[in-house]
Amino acid sequence: MKLELTDLEDFARGAAFLGTGGGGDPYIGKLLAQHAIREFGVPTIIEPEDLADDALVFAIAMLGAPTVLVEKAACGDDIDLAIDKLSERLGRRPDALIPIEIGGVNSTVPLVASARTGIPLVNADGMGRAFPEIQMVTFNVYGSKPTPLSVVDEHLNSAIIDAKDAKTAEDLVRSVAIQMGLSVITANYPVSGDVVKKYAIKHTLTIALEIGRAISQGRKEGCPVEALVNYLRSTKYYKHCKILYDGKITDIKRETTKGFSVGFCRLEPLSGSGDSMEVVFQNENLAAKINGKMVTMVPDLICIVDRETAEPVPVEALRYGQRVKIIGASVPPIMRTPEALDIFGPQAFGLDGPYTPIEDIVMP
Amino acid sequence: MKLELTDLEDFARGAAFLGTGGGGDPYIGKLLAQHAIREFGVPTIIEPEDLADDALVFAIAMLGAPTVLVEKAACGDDIDLAIDKLSERLGRRPDALIPIEIGGVNSTVPLVASARTGIPLVNADGMGRAFPEIQMVTFNVYGSKPTPLSVVDEHLNSAIIDAKDAKTAEDLVRSVAIQMGLSVITANYPVSGDVVKKYAIKHTLTIALEIGRAISQGRKEGCPVEALVNYLRSTKYYKHCKILYDGKITDIKRETTKGFSVGFCRLEPLSGSGDSMEVVFQNENLAAKINGKMVTMVPDLICIVDRETAEPVPVEALRYGQRVKIIGASVPPIMRTPEALDIFGPQAFGLDGPYTPIEDIVMP
Repeated sequence: MKLELTDLEDFARGAAFLGTGGGGDPYIGKLLAQHAIREFGVPTIIEPEDLADDALVFAIAMLGAPTVLVEKAACGDDIDLAIDKLSERLGRRPDALIPIEIGGVNSTVPLVASARTGIPLVNADGMGRAFPEIQMVTFNVYGSKPTPLSVVDEHLNSAIIDAKDAKTAEDLVRSVAIQMGLSVITANYPVSGDVVKKYAIKHTLTIALEIGRAISQGRKEGCPVEALVNYLRSTKYYKHCKILYDGKITDIKRETTKGFSVGFCRLEPLSGSGDSMEVVFQNENLAAKINGKMVTMVPDLICIVDRETAEPVPVEALRYGQRVKIIGASVPPIMRTPEALDIFGPQAFGLDGPYTPIEDIVMP
Repeated sequence: MKLELTDLEDFARGAAFLGTGGGGDPYIGKLLAQHAIREFGVPTIIEPEDLADDALVFAIAMLGAPTVLVEKAACGDDIDLAIDKLSERLGRRPDALIPIEIGGVNSTVPLVASARTGIPLVNADGMGRAFPEIQMVTFNVYGSKPTPLSVVDEHLNSAIIDAKDAKTAEDLVRSVAIQMGLSVITANYPVSGDVVKKYAIKHTLTIALEIGRAISQGRKEGCPVEALVNYLRSTKYYKHCKILYDGKITDIKRETTKGFSVGFCRLEPLSGSGDSMEVVFQNENLAAKINGKMVTMVPDLICIVDRETAEPVPVEALRYGQRVKIIGASVPPIMRTPEALDIFGPQAFGLDGPYTPIEDIVMP
């Protein structure tokens, strides 16, 4: 695929949708990518199928709390240094970069990295959505480690972390990120092309762009949410898709704590009485309940969009009185295996399980 | 100098005295060193004067809270890995090791490191005592950085930190140490032989051993505290030395918080009424006040010893009712310059200043 400057708005919006509330404001992500592409040119995006088995691929991401990411964006030098530090540690520069997740800022930071360094970007990612923690990546589910990883702040302080397992890596990188101010750049998951081909969620950059385009086209036709849902139903991954709720936010609790934005929002019908909805989040939306009954849960997508424009609403932008629709969608089978659910299913977040696919709950 | 297995008890006790309450229980330090020397042989100790100007020297230390160090000691592999990781980062192994501080466990961990690796240990240190934070080192006072540094836990998870200044390095290594459980090994301050010769506090391993010997000899003669004070008065660094107080602990507050053991103890006379003493600590004893008036303050030494045996009492072993003497002593001039006081004088710890040397307060 090829991403032009004029595609960035659609791309960032689509990625924000897949970010399921996390990954930071797409507007910030778009600005970062626009700036980098104007300065360094359009990055080369390659298809995962075209990677050599022994190619070295780094995931590149911002890490922190979305509430902070919007205040303190990457400067560019930090992105370069994160790649340099991990390359130095491994004695080899990467042949390609890959987004660790597709969502908000973390779908455009890899574009910036690729534009700045000239290292091609793979049209795929490690989550097929966004998740809050660094172990919640399909590469880890299927045996690859996130370490060694580099972490760099805006003053170019840095750390290289080696950890015995992915959860320890998460704990260590999180404590460093908290100290660095909760908005840092990390290069991680140095994996082979073979691993990317087997375990990445493929072509998600294309899907993000097409989601954004469906919303844009839908706006022109006066039905953006419907256009979005129709497009998702045409995809391989997100095809089980439903508007779970239509209403307004009547209660919201959001804290930036332990390195995350955590909380919940409650919704009521626009007018009159009816079912109530609750969405729980930790950077990303994790669970949606109607009248206390779980209707969609991680790893399936729960996305909050403006009910008129289908604009995805990240958790840091949720506010009292907002009129929204909540969309639930399936994820690829590789993200629903028992191994995957151990890492990013409901129990991994302390939620009541067991995991039940969205299509078995709301569209039986 | 040469340290034999039979010297370790005296050496560890003397180092615990110079640790001024910090650096962890000397008993643990002694066990670690005994074990290493039995397995790997006596380490080679070299004099700072014998270092080549361009020799590469690493400081090596445990870092954390003394209250935790006593529960979770180094395993050995973590020490080796800390040196390996920093060597790998620099592309060169060190020609010598140096204790970052002389105090408790951190005077014997370098012995262990030297015995295990065969890398000579320099008869000197970077503090002339113990301090709680990694920027509080003469090398930093006079322009050398603690980074790059390595930090390793007992599971051999590791981080390499590069920071723009020593305080940022402290903040980052502390956050990693907290996450790793507050008892970690760090190799840091990669400095040249020239820097060690100019700015290290020299021959402190010898002084620690001789302090221990003075206490042992004093015990035989029934006057260990006096023997200790007499020995200190014969040294170049600690010659302004006084028994500040003789009494019992009547109040103690000690918390393990933000990565340190912090608090204070209050003392009253053994019997009857009289002056009261308060000692404030952050891992190490920082200030001693009689009736609320400061009588000794960092960087000068404040050491609490058992009033009968002169056994140094680390902060984690302070307890209600303990009968102790409190000894104050001067430090070398290189530790009392304005630059040095900026880094580890009273104001650096948020204490009332300005710094006044012990000899100007209690022995005018």
